[in-house]
Amino acid sequence: MVKNRRGQGRAEIENVTPRIDDGAFPIKRFVGDEVVVEADAFTDGHDAITVVLLHRNENDATWRETLMQPLGNDRWRGAFTASACGRYRYAVLAWVDQFKTWSRDFAKRAEAKQDLRVDLLIGLEWVELAVARATGDDAAQLNRYADALRGGGDESVRAAASLELAQLMHRHAERRFATQTAELTVWAERERARFSAWYELFPRSCSAVLGQHGTFKDVEARLPYVASMGFDVLYLPPIHPIGRSFRKGRNNSVMAGPNDPGSPWAIGAKEGGHKAIHPELGTLADFHHLVQAAQTHGLEIALDIAFQCAPEHPYVTEHPEWFRKRPDGTIQYAENPPKKYQDIYPFDFETEDWQAMWEELRSVVQFWIDQGVRIFRVDNPHTKSFGFWAWLIETIKRECPDVIFLAEAFTRPRVMYRLAKAGFTHSYNYFPWRNTKWELTEFMTELTQPPVSDFFGANLWPNTPDILPESLQYGGRAAFMARFVLAATLGASYGIYGPAYELQDNAPMAPGKDEYLDSEKYEIKAWDLERADSLRPLIARVNQIRRENAALQGHANLRFHPVDNEQIIAYSKTSEDGASQILVVVNLDPYYKQSGFIDLALGELGLDAHQAYQAHDLLSDARYLWRGGRNYVELDPHSLPAHIFALRRRVRTEHDFDYYL
Amino acid sequence: MVKNRRGQGRAEIENVTPRIDDGAFPIKRFVGDEVVVEADAFTDGHDAITVVLLHRNENDATWRETLMQPLGNDRWRGAFTASACGRYRYAVLAWVDQFKTWSRDFAKRAEAKQDLRVDLLIGLEWVELAVARATGDDAAQLNRYADALRGGGDESVRAAASLELAQLMHRHAERRFATQTAELTVWAERERARFSAWYELFPRSCSAVLGQHGTFKDVEARLPYVASMGFDVLYLPPIHPIGRSFRKGRNNSVMAGPNDPGSPWAIGAKEGGHKAIHPELGTLADFHHLVQAAQTHGLEIALDIAFQCAPEHPYVTEHPEWFRKRPDGTIQYAENPPKKYQDIYPFDFETEDWQAMWEELRSVVQFWIDQGVRIFRVDNPHTKSFGFWAWLIETIKRECPDVIFLAEAFTRPRVMYRLAKAGFTHSYNYFPWRNTKWELTEFMTELTQPPVSDFFGANLWPNTPDILPESLQYGGRAAFMARFVLAATLGASYGIYGPAYELQDNAPMAPGKDEYLDSEKYEIKAWDLERADSLRPLIARVNQIRRENAALQGHANLRFHPVDNEQIIAYSKTSEDGASQILVVVNLDPYYKQSGFIDLALGELGLDAHQAYQAHDLLSDARYLWRGGRNYVELDPHSLPAHIFALRRRVRTEHDFDYYL
Repeated sequence: MVKNRRGQGRAEIENVTPRIDDGAFPIKRFVGDEVVVEADAFTDGHDAITVVLLHRNENDATWRETLMQPLGNDRWRGAFTASACGRYRYAVLAWVDQFKTWSRDFAKRAEAKQDLRVDLLIGLEWVELAVARATGDDAAQLNRYADALRGGGDESVRAAASLELAQLMHRHAERRFATQTAELTVWAERERARFSAWYELFPRSCSAVLGQHGTFKDVEARLPYVASMGFDVLYLPPIHPIGRSFRKGRNNSVMAGPNDPGSPWAIGAKEGGHKAIHPELGTLADFHHLVQAAQTHGLEIALDIAFQCAPEHPYVTEHPEWFRKRPDGTIQYAENPPKKYQDIYPFDFETEDWQAMWEELRSVVQFWIDQGVRIFRVDNPHTKSFGFWAWLIETIKRECPDVIFLAEAFTRPRVMYRLAKAGFTHSYNYFPWRNTKWELTEFMTELTQPPVSDFFGANLWPNTPDILPESLQYGGRAAFMARFVLAATLGASYGIYGPAYELQDNAPMAPGKDEYLDSEKYEIKAWDLERADSLRPLIARVNQIRRENAALQGHANLRFHPVDNEQIIAYSKTSEDGASQILVVVNLDPYYKQSGFIDLALGELGLDAHQAYQAHDLLSDARYLWRGGRNYVELDPHSLPAHIFALRRRVRTEHDFDYYL
Repeated sequence: MVKNRRGQGRAEIENVTPRIDDGAFPIKRFVGDEVVVEADAFTDGHDAITVVLLHRNENDATWRETLMQPLGNDRWRGAFTASACGRYRYAVLAWVDQFKTWSRDFAKRAEAKQDLRVDLLIGLEWVELAVARATGDDAAQLNRYADALRGGGDESVRAAASLELAQLMHRHAERRFATQTAELTVWAERERARFSAWYELFPRSCSAVLGQHGTFKDVEARLPYVASMGFDVLYLPPIHPIGRSFRKGRNNSVMAGPNDPGSPWAIGAKEGGHKAIHPELGTLADFHHLVQAAQTHGLEIALDIAFQCAPEHPYVTEHPEWFRKRPDGTIQYAENPPKKYQDIYPFDFETEDWQAMWEELRSVVQFWIDQGVRIFRVDNPHTKSFGFWAWLIETIKRECPDVIFLAEAFTRPRVMYRLAKAGFTHSYNYFPWRNTKWELTEFMTELTQPPVSDFFGANLWPNTPDILPESLQYGGRAAFMARFVLAATLGASYGIYGPAYELQDNAPMAPGKDEYLDSEKYEIKAWDLERADSLRPLIARVNQIRRENAALQGHANLRFHPVDNEQIIAYSKTSEDGASQILVVVNLDPYYKQSGFIDLALGELGLDAHQAYQAHDLLSDARYLWRGGRNYVELDPHSLPAHIFALRRRVRTEHDFDYYL
C-alpha cells in the first residue's frame, strides 16, 4: 500500500477506502459526486501528523490536494469532487508535522506556566526554515511571525497560537520524510449511468403491417409510444445480418422454416458482420435517422454487442485463426455438453493472434460509437476473457468516457462481480429470481452497500427476452405491476423487455422453464399496444415519479423497514441532500389483499416522533397523515399492489396539506 | 494481486486469504501448523480450471505445490505445513485446464450417446502434447493411453474416464497462460511463541538479606520458586547500569535520595550502556551462569530492550547526532508536555545518521543473543519508528528465527496492531482494563479471530510494574484469583509481575491511578514469599493444567457460552485435533457468590445432547455428570472463583467415572 518509504519516514498510512481488491480495480462514481476517502494514519510517539488527500483527473498532470480531517481512533477523512466524466487518481500523503507538534505542545507548556524561552527558539527555527521556502507576501508575513517569536513575552505566546501562522506553516510545510500510498483510481461516469430507465424491443416486430418485417422507420414510429412511458434508453437486440446455416426456427427449433427470420444473436451472413446492418431493417442512413429521432424524444439508442459469429460471418473465412479448429477440419461451434449450438461460433480468446482479434473487436464498438451510439448492452460477456473486457472498456472510455456498457452477466457471483471490476458500468443480476421479502432485502442490501456498490452497478430487469421468471408466469397482472414497481424503485437503473412486459405476456415454453413460449427471439411478433389492460399508464406514472423525486435516482440510503406481514415489503430512499424522501410499500402476494404495520425508524428518516407527517402516495395521489413510526398499510393486488409515498415533514401551520414540505 | 498477466490468460484469482494489508506484511503461524490458504479462482465460460498452492521456505529456492480443492461458489482451499521455524512464501497459481474440460465434457457426451469420434481425436491431441513433455514411465504410460484413444469404441471411452490418465495429464500439464498471484509471506515461530507463561521479577529485590541489592546469584536462588509455579519464561527488567543525573527517587519523585537505586529503564552510566551489566547485579559471567541455571529449571531468561538513554549513557557523548538538540545546546529529554522526563533522552529516529544508529541498536540485540538470550520484551516500542522495528526484527530473525519479541505496546489500537505487523511476536494489550463479561467477550473474540489473529499475538498480563488495574486494587484476593485464571486460560501466552501478583500487592499510588504505591521501579522491595495467603499453589495448579491440556495451548476454537448471570463468564477451548476440551467458568464478582445456568452449544463441542458427559473441575478435582446443554454453576469468590472443567464424553460403560474419556 505504501510507497516512497525511507529510513527516516515515520508516518504510516493503512486501509485506504474505497479500495477494491488491493487497488487492482477502479472504484465507480458519477459526475458531480464527492469521492469520500478515508485512511488510517498515524506515527510513532506523540508527534502530530498532517494528512492530505491527493487527487487529479487523469487528463491533468497536476495533483490537487485537500486536507484530511481526523475522525478519531487514527482514522482520517477527506473528499474531492469528480467534476467531469473520466478517470481520477487519488492517494493519501502524510507526514510528521513538527511545527504542528510544537504549537500543540507550546500551548500546554504556556498553560502550565513553564519557562518558554528555549521552546520559543525551537518554534522560531521551524518558522525560519519556512521563510526560506516561502516567497512574496507569505515570506514577509512569516518573517513578521518570526520577529514576534523572537520578542519573547505575551506577544510571542500569541503569535505561537495564531491560526494564520498555522496556515502559513502548512502552506510552506517541508513535508520531510512524507509517506504516500499507492495511487488508486475512480471512474466517474455520466448521469445516465446512475439513473436510467431502459426499454428493449425487437425492431423487426415494429411494423404496422401484420407479418411484415419491421424497419428502423417503424421503430421511429414507435418512439412516441416508448417516450410516453417515460423511458430514456431504447435498447435494440443485434441489428446485424443474421446467419442462415443451422438457423434456429420458432421456439428454438433446430430446423428453421424458409420464412423464419432467425435469432438476431446469430450474427453474420454474406451481407456482412458486426459493422453491417440487417438489410430488412434498413440502411446505415436509416439508422442515423433513428438515432437522431430518438434524441428528439429524449431517448438514447442502446445497441447489443454480441461477440460471436454465425458460420457465414466474414470473420470465419477472413480470420479462421480466431476460432478453434476441430481435428476434422471444421470450426468448433458453441457447446454446453451435451447441448450443441451449431449456429454459433465462439471466438477463441486463446488464439495466438489475440492482439489483432482484440483490435478488431474494439473497432466494432468504435464503429457504432462513430454512428452516434453511446450505450451498449453486452451479450454473454462471461464467455469472453476478463482481460479482454478490461482492455476494451478502458481503451474505449479513454477516448469516449461517456460510453456505458451493460453486462448481461447472468452467471455465478464471482464472475458477475469480476466483470463489473473489469469496467462494465451496469450489470444484469439475480433480480428476476429474488421474490420474497427476505431475498429482496438481502440482495439489495448487498448490491447497494460497499464493497459491492463501489464497483457494481445494478440494473434491474424483471424480464428479458431470455427470462420470463416464474413469478410472472403465475402471478397475473398483479405480479407484473408489483415486479415493475420493485425494479423501478429499488433500482436507480432498470429496464423491461417490451411490449411483452406491459402486455403481460406470461406463457412459458414449458412448465419450470424461464423461456417465453413463441419467443420473439425466433419470430416476428405482433403486439396490440392499445390493449385496455396494458401497464402503460402505470409505467408512465412510475417513471414520472422517478424523474420528479431525486431519492429514486440513486442507490444510497436504501433502508428496509420492518413490516409485521411477510408479504409486504417496505423500504425508503433519501436523496443525498435529504430533501427528497420516498417510502415504497409493495404487496408481494399477487393473489390476496394484505395488510400490516410498518415500523419506520423515524430518527434515521429525519422525522420527528412527536410531529405528524404526511405520506403522500404518488401513485394514487392519496394523502395520509401519520404520526409515530408504526403505521397501518393495506394493499389489494387487484387494484394496485404498491404505494410510493413521498414523506413530508409538517411545517409551521396545520391549515392545509399544501403546507407540508 | 495478480501478476504475469498476458492477453491469452483467462484464469482469475482473487481474495487470497490469509493476507494482511494487501500482502504488505507476513501473517504469523507456529512451527508444525498447517497454513490453510483459500482463494477465489475462476475463468470465463464453461472451461474447467486447475488451482494449485505454491509454497516454499525462504531458505529453499524450490517451490513446492499442493492441489487446491473447490469449496463451491468458486472458492478453493489448499494447505501446506510450516515444518520449520522461519519464513515461508506462498502464492496461488491457476490455469484453464483443457484436458480436464475435455474429460468432463466427454463423459457427458458419452452419457448422451453422441458420436464421439471427433471428440476422441481432440482428447488424443492433448494426450499427445503431454507425451512430448513427459519422460520415462509416464511417457510410456501416456502413449498407451494415446493408443487406447486412437482405438475408438468402449476401450477409448474407458481410457478417457481413467483416473490414472487424469493424474498423468495433471503431472504433465502444459499450464499454458497460467495466472499467478503475488507472493505472500508467513512467519512460522517456535512453540514457545504460541504457548508460554511469563514471570517478571526485579533481580535487585531478590536478595535474602533485607535492604541489600540483589544479584544474579540471588536470582538463581529464586529459580526453584519460579519454576515450582510452572512458569517457563523469566523476564528481567533492564540489567544495565542506571543513570545518575535526574535519577528518580521513591514513588517517582524528581529528586532521588543518595541510596535510591533509580529506575532500571534509565539506562546508561559511566559503567556502560546497553551492552553492559549494572555492577551491583554481577558480571557477564554471572549472567551466563544464570541463563544456564534457568535452563536446568525449564526457564528461559527474557531481557528488556529499552532503546533510550540516561544522560550519562556513552552514546550521548559518542553519538550526539543520534539525539535531538535544543537551541540552547542541551539535548532534548523525553516529554509529554507539560510533563518532562529529564532522566531520559530518546533517540531521534529522524537523524541523518539513522543507518548507523539502526545498526548499533541491532548490535545491542545481537549482543544479548550472543549471551544466550532468545526472548526480548521491548519497552515502549510505539515511540520508535515502525520502519526501524520491521527492519530490526527481520534482520535478527533471518539469522535467529527462534527469537521472540514482546511489544510493550500500551497505546492506541492502530499503533498496537501496526507493531505486530512489523514483526513483534507478542504484544501487551488492553486485557488489564477488560473486566466485564461483555468487554472480555468482545475483546478476546477480536484478538483470536482473523484478521487480527493472523498477525497479532496476544500476551495477557493482569498486572505489570506499570499497571495495577483498578479491578485488583479493590477486589481483594478473589479478584487476583479470577484475573489470574482469566489471563492463563484466555491467553495461550500470559504473564504476571511477581511477587507483587501472588502476594496480591494492591496499593495504588493514588486513587484513580494505575501506578503501584512504593513501586519496585524506584526502590528495592522485600517480599515475604512464604505468606500463607500467597496465590502460589493456585498458580502452580493452573500452569500444570495448561501443560496437561492442549486446548489451553492455543487460541483457536475459543467460544463464549451464554450464562444467565452477567457476573459469570463461560468459555471453552478445543485443541486442533479435538481431543482436549476445556470449559472455563469464572465469577467476575469478587464480593458475592454467583450462580446461573450455562448454555453450552453441545453440537459445536462435539458432545451428544442425549448422552451424559463429565465435567471434571481440574482446579477442585470435583466431577460433575452433566446432560444436555443447560447446566447449573455456582462460584464463591472467597473460596475459588473459577472452574476449569475438562469435558469428557461418556464411552461404552457407565460403571465408573474412570471410563470417561
